Amino acid sequence: MELLERRIKEDGKVYPGGVLKVDSFLNHQLDVRLFAEMGKEWARLFAEDNITKILTIEASGIGIACIVAQYFDVPVIFAKKSKTKNIAGDVYTSQVESYTHGRTYDIIVSKQFLHPEDRVLLIDDFLANGSALMGLVKLVEDAGATTVGAGIAVEKAFQTGGALVREYGVRVESLARVASMSEDGSIRFC
Amino acid sequence: MELLERRIKEDGKVYPGGVLKVDSFLNHQLDVRLFAEMGKEWARLFAEDNITKILTIEASGIGIACIVAQYFDVPVIFAKKSKTKNIAGDVYTSQVESYTHGRTYDIIVSKQFLHPEDRVLLIDDFLANGSALMGLVKLVEDAGATTVGAGIAVEKAFQTGGALVREYGVRVESLARVASMSEDGSIRFC
Repeated sequence: MELLERRIKEDGKVYPGGVLKVDSFLNHQLDVRLFAEMGKEWARLFAEDNITKILTIEASGIGIACIVAQYFDVPVIFAKKSKTKNIAGDVYTSQVESYTHGRTYDIIVSKQFLHPEDRVLLIDDFLANGSALMGLVKLVEDAGATTVGAGIAVEKAFQTGGALVREYGVRVESLARVASMSEDGSIRFC
Repeated sequence: MELLERRIKEDGKVYPGGVLKVDSFLNHQLDVRLFAEMGKEWARLFAEDNITKILTIEASGIGIACIVAQYFDVPVIFAKKSKTKNIAGDVYTSQVESYTHGRTYDIIVSKQFLHPEDRVLLIDDFLANGSALMGLVKLVEDAGATTVGAGIAVEKAFQTGGALVREYGVRVESLARVASMSEDGSIRFC
């Protein structure tokens, strides 16, 4: 998506260790006009797929997911990061490894909100190692629902997550796929 | 706002200890159509106020804030909950006491995104003891910007937060003000 790629080139910042900072429009300050254009694009790509729910993960996926949901006219569910082990039977749980924070945490969704008949579109801001996205896929599986696909704003195509999730059989539609970036600020897209 | 009050009566659940659960439409599963109606109402209430930014707090405020921002055509910023002490000079910091989790945490906003000329509308899902909202007010003060007001979905009017924040001089527009509730499920609005 040319609009998003251009915005990343203009306002994104590259930091040591392969960090791409897009917090001026994507995940700290949120440009809801841009999100609307992203929503239209995913609505076009998944137009035939009878999406019934959008599932994302807190915190930075929520804003994008809500704007996007308007174009599908469906509710959003966000998976919560849980500090405590959830042994109660009222939530679906899966594990996510965070490379940024160097730890593993549980994500949970109430069983009330995901059902076998649901056709779920996953939405997130970033796809890098794929751990968060696979965590969401597992939640949908646990509910017996169908993952129709994943809409990702920025995929770091030089990391393994995209291949991992696609090999697992999930249709991934990333609106910007970063092929490489360097600390002089240059960013190349696939 | 009658639409929201009706929804709370229909789908809200009252639990021991003054807990009102509205997670089927407000803060776990998110009804973006309802959020749009809330956005229209706040846009009407703050129509003359030249809002330039919407500020909320992660995680459950983000979805509401993003939908609402479309009616003001302004960006959203969300304050992040920080686990680490932020001594770096690049963020504004304030403290929030969480009664639910029994602890105090810092919230931060990058200095890049709040400026003295900003006229800020605060948005959050709940107002109870007022600690989160006062934390946001302080962030805006630190930036030298103006808090125009606060749009709250559900105010627990039987707790002290609303009075606290209004006495501080902030215009608070709560779309549903719960006067009392009891464990038999009955909820009375102001």
